Amino acid sequence: MKHPSSLDFLTEALRRLPGVGPKSAQRMAYHLMQHDREGAALLGRALTQAVDKIHHCTRCNTFTEKEVCETCLDTERDASLLCVVETPADQLMIEQTLTYKGLYFVLMGHLSPLDGIGPKDIHLEKLIARATDGLVQEVVLATNFTNEGEATAHYISETLKARGLKVSRLARGVPVGGELEYVDAGTIARAMLDRRTT
Amino acid sequence: MKHPSSLDFLTEALRRLPGVGPKSAQRMAYHLMQHDREGAALLGRALTQAVDKIHHCTRCNTFTEKEVCETCLDTERDASLLCVVETPADQLMIEQTLTYKGLYFVLMGHLSPLDGIGPKDIHLEKLIARATDGLVQEVVLATNFTNEGEATAHYISETLKARGLKVSRLARGVPVGGELEYVDAGTIARAMLDRRTT
Repeated sequence: MKHPSSLDFLTEALRRLPGVGPKSAQRMAYHLMQHDREGAALLGRALTQAVDKIHHCTRCNTFTEKEVCETCLDTERDASLLCVVETPADQLMIEQTLTYKGLYFVLMGHLSPLDGIGPKDIHLEKLIARATDGLVQEVVLATNFTNEGEATAHYISETLKARGLKVSRLARGVPVGGELEYVDAGTIARAMLDRRTT
Repeated sequence: MKHPSSLDFLTEALRRLPGVGPKSAQRMAYHLMQHDREGAALLGRALTQAVDKIHHCTRCNTFTEKEVCETCLDTERDASLLCVVETPADQLMIEQTLTYKGLYFVLMGHLSPLDGIGPKDIHLEKLIARATDGLVQEVVLATNFTNEGEATAHYISETLKARGLKVSRLARGVPVGGELEYVDAGTIARAMLDRRTT
């Protein structure tokens, strides 16, 4: 028994999605062909359009259809602050807190030597050029508090401090609503070391 | 901060895939745009091509690019046997056992009244027409041994027996390699009732 080649092609192509293995890909292909051809056609168009139109912002490196993204063009923002995040999703989370009105730089990843992701892959040269534009006074490192995120923050911090920039890092501590009994010891240790005078 | 609309469109479209929620869709969209544009373009073409080319076999109802699929056209197969399965994946599993040389009918689903899936959705009229072609002597029901699969088998069995056809069902019992201590009681009860003289 042979499958039609278009179906094989689709199943193989679906495996390019992160986290999709052979079984999931087959299930997705069957689902689309059987129950949602309209969705399949829509997704096909969306992919083609995205590949065609989406580029990186020349200033902050995020995804945009223009040369410079809307955030970077926003003149209401404080150009002396530059917040470094790993992904556009992280940027979105920070925006939602309404506590930051500066600009951003999106690394699109984090350092991970074991996976072969070095400084070039997180666009460090571009970040250095961006941070040394003469307007930026402080770089706020908001990479994740994972091993890779911390290593990335440390590396960027050293690089930018060597160029005379002020570099800060989001505070670590007990999360809002956190009960000490259920917070891990590492977080409590950090919160103790970073304790603040009230 | 606003995302470029092509990215929103892609993220929304990815949610049409089964089992993909908003977070996964966003992660997939970022991954494709950042790390695998070639894969995105490929998947886009695969989807468009599949929607365009894939239809249902007029005889067995499986996916095919032709009017009648290769399996149905295979003259080496025993046209007196018709095996009813839920999906092409199930058909593939049976083919791999090399124990069956008849033809197939693919329901593309199972009865599930709670989800609004009735006899029409599993192409029962097409199955009846196929099974009463004068050549088919025995219909082998190979739907899943789940509640829905069993109900589907029962319904089809009653419908086809009323038309004078011989209908059989895959045997239930202890799986190969199964240790009684770890097999569920329902399976053992079934194996006891269906025990065979050796």
